[in-house]
Amino acid sequence: MFTYIKKLGILFLISTLFTTSIFAQTLRQIQQERGLSDQDILAAVKTYTPTGKLDEYVVFSSGGQAGQLIVYGVPSMRILKYVGVFTPEPWQGWGFDKHSKDILAEGNLSRELTWGDTHHPALSETNGDYDGQYVFINDKANPRIAVIDLKYFETSQIVANPLFASNHGAAVVSPNTEYVAEVSQYAAPLDKKPVSLDEYEESYRGGVTYWKFDRASGKIDASKSFAVEFPPYVQDISDMGKLASNGWHFINSINTELYPGGFGPGNTEFKNKLPNEAGMSANDMDYMHVVNWQIAEKLYEDGTFTRINDFPVISIEDIVDAGGLFLVPEPKSPHGADVSPDGQYVIVSGKLDTHASVYSVEKMLNLLENKDFVGTDDYGIPILDYQKSLHRAVNLGLGPLHTQFGGGNIAYTSLYVESAIVKWDYIEGKVIEKTPIHYNVGHITAAEGDTVSPDGKYLISLNKLSLDRFVNVGPLYPQNHQLIDINDGTKKMQLIYDMPLPLGEPHYAQMIKADKLNPVSRYTEQFPNATRPGRERIERNGNEVTIYSTSIRSRFSPEVIEVKRGDRIIWHVTSLERAKDQVHGFTVNQYNVHGSLEPGETGTFEFIADEAGVFPFYCTEFCSALHLEMAGMFIVTE
Amino acid sequence: MFTYIKKLGILFLISTLFTTSIFAQTLRQIQQERGLSDQDILAAVKTYTPTGKLDEYVVFSSGGQAGQLIVYGVPSMRILKYVGVFTPEPWQGWGFDKHSKDILAEGNLSRELTWGDTHHPALSETNGDYDGQYVFINDKANPRIAVIDLKYFETSQIVANPLFASNHGAAVVSPNTEYVAEVSQYAAPLDKKPVSLDEYEESYRGGVTYWKFDRASGKIDASKSFAVEFPPYVQDISDMGKLASNGWHFINSINTELYPGGFGPGNTEFKNKLPNEAGMSANDMDYMHVVNWQIAEKLYEDGTFTRINDFPVISIEDIVDAGGLFLVPEPKSPHGADVSPDGQYVIVSGKLDTHASVYSVEKMLNLLENKDFVGTDDYGIPILDYQKSLHRAVNLGLGPLHTQFGGGNIAYTSLYVESAIVKWDYIEGKVIEKTPIHYNVGHITAAEGDTVSPDGKYLISLNKLSLDRFVNVGPLYPQNHQLIDINDGTKKMQLIYDMPLPLGEPHYAQMIKADKLNPVSRYTEQFPNATRPGRERIERNGNEVTIYSTSIRSRFSPEVIEVKRGDRIIWHVTSLERAKDQVHGFTVNQYNVHGSLEPGETGTFEFIADEAGVFPFYCTEFCSALHLEMAGMFIVTE
Repeated sequence: MFTYIKKLGILFLISTLFTTSIFAQTLRQIQQERGLSDQDILAAVKTYTPTGKLDEYVVFSSGGQAGQLIVYGVPSMRILKYVGVFTPEPWQGWGFDKHSKDILAEGNLSRELTWGDTHHPALSETNGDYDGQYVFINDKANPRIAVIDLKYFETSQIVANPLFASNHGAAVVSPNTEYVAEVSQYAAPLDKKPVSLDEYEESYRGGVTYWKFDRASGKIDASKSFAVEFPPYVQDISDMGKLASNGWHFINSINTELYPGGFGPGNTEFKNKLPNEAGMSANDMDYMHVVNWQIAEKLYEDGTFTRINDFPVISIEDIVDAGGLFLVPEPKSPHGADVSPDGQYVIVSGKLDTHASVYSVEKMLNLLENKDFVGTDDYGIPILDYQKSLHRAVNLGLGPLHTQFGGGNIAYTSLYVESAIVKWDYIEGKVIEKTPIHYNVGHITAAEGDTVSPDGKYLISLNKLSLDRFVNVGPLYPQNHQLIDINDGTKKMQLIYDMPLPLGEPHYAQMIKADKLNPVSRYTEQFPNATRPGRERIERNGNEVTIYSTSIRSRFSPEVIEVKRGDRIIWHVTSLERAKDQVHGFTVNQYNVHGSLEPGETGTFEFIADEAGVFPFYCTEFCSALHLEMAGMFIVTE
Repeated sequence: MFTYIKKLGILFLISTLFTTSIFAQTLRQIQQERGLSDQDILAAVKTYTPTGKLDEYVVFSSGGQAGQLIVYGVPSMRILKYVGVFTPEPWQGWGFDKHSKDILAEGNLSRELTWGDTHHPALSETNGDYDGQYVFINDKANPRIAVIDLKYFETSQIVANPLFASNHGAAVVSPNTEYVAEVSQYAAPLDKKPVSLDEYEESYRGGVTYWKFDRASGKIDASKSFAVEFPPYVQDISDMGKLASNGWHFINSINTELYPGGFGPGNTEFKNKLPNEAGMSANDMDYMHVVNWQIAEKLYEDGTFTRINDFPVISIEDIVDAGGLFLVPEPKSPHGADVSPDGQYVIVSGKLDTHASVYSVEKMLNLLENKDFVGTDDYGIPILDYQKSLHRAVNLGLGPLHTQFGGGNIAYTSLYVESAIVKWDYIEGKVIEKTPIHYNVGHITAAEGDTVSPDGKYLISLNKLSLDRFVNVGPLYPQNHQLIDINDGTKKMQLIYDMPLPLGEPHYAQMIKADKLNPVSRYTEQFPNATRPGRERIERNGNEVTIYSTSIRSRFSPEVIEVKRGDRIIWHVTSLERAKDQVHGFTVNQYNVHGSLEPGETGTFEFIADEAGVFPFYCTEFCSALHLEMAGMFIVTE
């Protein structure tokens, strides 16, 4: 009895003492007021990043149909920047100054394009590890690849694909960023001619373009790039081999039915057909394409290609003959083809199957070497036996989609239909645990997850729906990226943060250690039209007026510019600032001119002064206490 | 001695017991690993909003030169949406479908404008309280006002100012949203003609436009709107009176020097002058403009106006004669004119003065009534005595800029130069405390802060620089919005969250209770070209092809469309979805077409099929496991 009372007393003492510490008391009070669980508090403390402390990781996420690249910090899940890529964005001056207009114009196909559908960012790699120098991203709608230079966090190049009608398995890089791969999605004639869908099998084609990346210049060199022809299966997501599988490239496909589509009215040939969602999903198995870019590179260098739209294309026949292309069956409508960190396995998930297939690279290459094929497809590509290629198939759950890797044998796979992440051992083939997400996860990204040495620690679930997770902001909902603590892989997964995405639909992301990034704070390069202080001037040559101007807190020089209606204006603005974060904006009112002038930068703005009147120009970035006085007048006389 | 040992023992017990509770132990472990203070943990717990819980407040923030409206939640400080306003944004289809193109076109001045410089969002009010129905925002660069309908969180109207060359003190609303006011900034001839700066005093003018808002239609009615002429001082920030000051409108100015500018080369008349930053800051005092919109409305209704550019303008003389306009001196280069919740005081801060001036509305109106003026300015506007108008002036610190209100007599003012927020009693004139921010705060926003009944609780510091607060993402830094816990005003201010702004420079924001917002999740209105399932069709009329199509998980109907080069395409896409968050995107590859189709919506896309070839069209929003199959072919034959 005495012991019992003593125990009660100690329990009482514990709870009393805990709650009487001022900190603990305050904590419990806030907890109660806000209705938080103990688990919520631990999640808060795991993610909260107080003023003055920096995030440990940085995520580069696609912006989907917003056409931008999203950059955010982990574990705080705060968005740090939307980098302008395919869509003009005035805050950055992207698509408004001459420099960025020129880059965007390089990416125009037959018309001016003012948006893009970014899907897959790929960080540049050195020896299979992210090196923090560049990130590449694709435009699915207008097949293009952009290069973003992480010295400035700015897009430095856009290349347009001369052959494809769309892409999806892009951008992916080889382990030393020798090439940036762009895989086509919806098949179309490679010469871009109009051909009836009656001739789908004969005339439509897919393919992969290997864009040569020149690290010295930081540019893709189109003159050293080439493509490999594929059948008109609808190629999908892809991943490059590494270490044991270096040189190989693994590409899903979804339409081995060669179904040309045609549901609905309006086309006599194809009237009343099945919709694509059924017609393209009839087969139980599709084909993973396995292609070797080193063999393709050799063929290209040897001249074994034809030119289509003036671009070198290696035919299916030639790449097959050289042993550089084979097919492996994969479960219905796959979406992920993910190479393990050691390069020995490729994991494919079929969205309409509950299994993930773990392919053994060693087994596949042995089958290839021994020409142990089950046959060829209609285009003459050898097909390996599914079972013989497999390490194992594992039942993961409903709608497995994309796999990322922790350490050791641990893999994480998104389950789209089930709205969950499954953690499993891909060598032993055992499911370890599942955690629900909210809702309908597409891809996932793990810390350094696509490298040869993933960190474990954090996993992000890129969910397609947010439904009830955030305050309703109208019929177009934000997406929800959920941060999951995967620690060292030994403990249970813990969902620790819900992050709404306010703009765009991110499809894919990569997470890099923040200390691998080393951007500059100002421009030190010499701009061709830079103006030194005191050398500001206005030069007239016929009806062309060139203005060499400067900006510094808090004035433009010159402040008054008078021109005649019809004059062509070339306006250079040099920022004389050197201090970091001291940015000036520049606009000429009503002339649709805008620029962002970061320290040391010279921006150039060209337009015709086609309207008479008085037009203020001013600094659009609050730069000092006298920021509002940083303005001038552009007067256009009749 | 015994007591001493006993005390030590209890202390040991306290710390031991605290750390042995599993929760507390885990908490302390994470705290140690992440280097957090106890204060950090409390801040984390105050802001962290776990999955499934919603934010208490919603902030509407300008997006600056990004041209958008930013929506985020408090206390989590997570961005929920960037609403497309003046800048086309493809994720939302904003500026891509016919509906939004038409709205943007209404706002075009003499040319197509593809961006804006948003500064001041104003929530619609009923009896001086936010009602959650609409938000208005200005474009400073191309003087315009946008209406955003909070039923959809979409821009529903843009009106272009027919008189001004720029604006800044906009948008602000009267207490029942009778009018949305737009105050000009840089002066220019109201008829928009080119006039030399030699004639600055005679021919340049400022003004205010009162846009009549019709709540029934949710639109500004330009035909019932009017403007009041002002001298060519550079008018700035403004606030509308309420309760005791209902009908009055308080507007700062910064250039009572009437300095026309002209620093730098290139203009013989104005060569080698002072820059504006000096020329416009010579006087110790500027003028607050106090104008009465009810008196102006009466003049307008009586026909006491002239038409400039076909827009009714009330002259300075007429508004002065009617007792509807006077000036009050205010300290040098003011930036805030903020009316207290009861409408009895107006607080003005001079950026180059250390004081805030607290004006008494009662005193000013008595002076006006008694015609107790110190004189008139050169334009005949009566000027009140500064001291006689004043309740008191309070020394707040360096660079006071903008004031928001808590409860009672409590005001919060941003100190730009000092990088701090000062909390003070504006009736007693006492500084209570200051808290540092990071760095250089412009405006601030408090919970329901511009209403007749502010909530206290939260204050946000809209900082202009972030410098070292976040992982470096290149020369263009994010801004930093810092959340401050101001609780009930009785405790000390506590900085509890740093939020980077990834896109745009937010100048001003308003914070509303989340439960006042009531947006819909789908469109229930009847769209004129909506297509019912089974009624999909393609109609040709000469070379105009109209496509009536539908979208539903996971197919478009029709899936194949063949047209001839040169055909004009009108493509209606009706979403048959009804479930919330089930959105489809729509693009025709390479044709620069994009739309977002929310449940129940019909989007219309018009273009000329000017290029022959095979162009996939597809759903750009991941909508189901068979999303990739939701595609069709648009074939343009020669």
